[in-house]
Amino acid sequence: MAVPSMKTDKLSVPQSKDFFAVGVDVGGTKVAAALVDSTGQIRFRSRSNMVANGTASDGLDAVVLTVRKLICESALAPDFRAIGICAPGPLNPDAGIVINPPNVPCWRNYPLVAEVARIFQVPVKLDNDANAAALAEATWGAGRSYRSVFYVGIGTGIGTGIVFDGRILHGASGAAGEGGHMGIDMRGPRCKCGKRGCVEVFASGPALAGRMRQKLQADHEGSTLLGLSGGDLEGVTAELVGQAAAKGDRLALSVIEEVVEILAYWLGNIVDLIEPDVVIVGGGVAPMLAAYLDGIYKRWQGACINPRAQVIPIILSSYADDAGVTGAAALCGIGSSQ
Amino acid sequence: MAVPSMKTDKLSVPQSKDFFAVGVDVGGTKVAAALVDSTGQIRFRSRSNMVANGTASDGLDAVVLTVRKLICESALAPDFRAIGICAPGPLNPDAGIVINPPNVPCWRNYPLVAEVARIFQVPVKLDNDANAAALAEATWGAGRSYRSVFYVGIGTGIGTGIVFDGRILHGASGAAGEGGHMGIDMRGPRCKCGKRGCVEVFASGPALAGRMRQKLQADHEGSTLLGLSGGDLEGVTAELVGQAAAKGDRLALSVIEEVVEILAYWLGNIVDLIEPDVVIVGGGVAPMLAAYLDGIYKRWQGACINPRAQVIPIILSSYADDAGVTGAAALCGIGSSQ
Repeated sequence: MAVPSMKTDKLSVPQSKDFFAVGVDVGGTKVAAALVDSTGQIRFRSRSNMVANGTASDGLDAVVLTVRKLICESALAPDFRAIGICAPGPLNPDAGIVINPPNVPCWRNYPLVAEVARIFQVPVKLDNDANAAALAEATWGAGRSYRSVFYVGIGTGIGTGIVFDGRILHGASGAAGEGGHMGIDMRGPRCKCGKRGCVEVFASGPALAGRMRQKLQADHEGSTLLGLSGGDLEGVTAELVGQAAAKGDRLALSVIEEVVEILAYWLGNIVDLIEPDVVIVGGGVAPMLAAYLDGIYKRWQGACINPRAQVIPIILSSYADDAGVTGAAALCGIGSSQ
Repeated sequence: MAVPSMKTDKLSVPQSKDFFAVGVDVGGTKVAAALVDSTGQIRFRSRSNMVANGTASDGLDAVVLTVRKLICESALAPDFRAIGICAPGPLNPDAGIVINPPNVPCWRNYPLVAEVARIFQVPVKLDNDANAAALAEATWGAGRSYRSVFYVGIGTGIGTGIVFDGRILHGASGAAGEGGHMGIDMRGPRCKCGKRGCVEVFASGPALAGRMRQKLQADHEGSTLLGLSGGDLEGVTAELVGQAAAKGDRLALSVIEEVVEILAYWLGNIVDLIEPDVVIVGGGVAPMLAAYLDGIYKRWQGACINPRAQVIPIILSSYADDAGVTGAAALCGIGSSQ
């Protein structure tokens, strides 16, 4: 496919001062890329399968292919200034190295930034999913009018990111922001990370579904859940729990109530330590939890010593599936010169 | 008392480029003030009783008297640039207002900074004890070669302060840094703050002594503790527990072991969230705990997902009783132009 003519394409750019970054979201099974403008709008997308189980080069090739597709197919892409990549952690954002993500085994201490920069000859930035999402929110999204943002993504795990004054808090070695592995019960069940009682053990999507299954096993009388899951206990998901709760299913509501209580206690700890200006909730489970987040305020009294906690907004993410690519583009700083 | 002649006194200043701040440490029973130079050295001290139960003016008078004594008695004091005050929280450092500290009832939403500035006609800064201590460590003390410092003061309570790049993390309204009220057990005993399972409930000096008393009541066979306290269960203090443990008292060692395990879990949470470059432990109980702090490293595996946690130093404060006045002086920024 031919790269489109530059001149004609430049004329078609709606705002002449616009500039672009390529945001790349690498997961265990797919690579998504997007051309993002300086207002945070996605102008073009591409997507490929990730090759996570091959060699390191196979993984790199999947990323390069996805970016090349974007460049070739978008008339705007030749103007991009930088490439931002979000990938599963652990990784070292300063060194640009992917350390050893469980679901991307092809990369072990892999210098992804150097490799991608060598190929495309532009600056390349790297961070983990939750940090990138936090920066997208702070730059363009629900957190854009706040100085400090605490982002929590609730999905198969719980990932968090902290942005102070437009900068991600990376900590001493880039490992800060792992709020999902803060423990709220030191004698509690062990998390897959090795710690006991991490909030992720209690309040991730699978944890919520698991708790529901436990309750159904004990007593499913009157619950509509098994009907929704086709009678299959294993088919109970966080989403179905949300659907049942929305219809007034008492068992489902009680599970959500437990999760909200746990999230309130955990967020109370975070507010007491860093007192962000806003808490933003994203991830796959966020839409389902949205109706219940206000319940956290009712619990601040016992969850937070900060007397102003009730005025710290807890709001939904501006992004659904686009948090990764948008956040990756935000890493390039294209939003900060707005 | 006459103010000393300025000219002669200036000649006696050892380093001609030195400049000074007055640091004031206000507690429930005393006011301590010190003239601190730009290298963090205390050059002169004064001390008065605090009048915490009278009118707001009585409290102010005690502060003013202590500072005046310092100015009158020290040959160096006329050169001071600013006054820093640390006081018990809650307070609002930006607005310079003391909100409602339980042990200083004379001040309720009291504009201490404006009052002191009006009297002495110099810039005045205000912060809470733990934040000021954290800044003293970061500016001149054990944390001076680190970019980010997490300070924990363990005494009758647990106070914490965070310094990033030389600046105290105040949060949205000045209420950040309350790490002592982060909970590690959401079903645990209630703290006087209203939350359940705050680390302060388990690991403050009185909590440690209380746990020891519990154990002694259950079984004091072989323990030397009651001997040390003159046979009086109520006389058991954290310090005596430390003395007994140092002599190999198994019961005392088991109590300290519990506290170290709790501190490790709690510090693990903090390291996973903000990953400071160093953790500094101060406060009255710190000297007693010093010999056991290394035990935290042995527990990182189950307390912290940060793979680099074992290289984050956990070290003792550089200050004993002087953390307050030194920290208060550090609030004036006299150390940052070194």
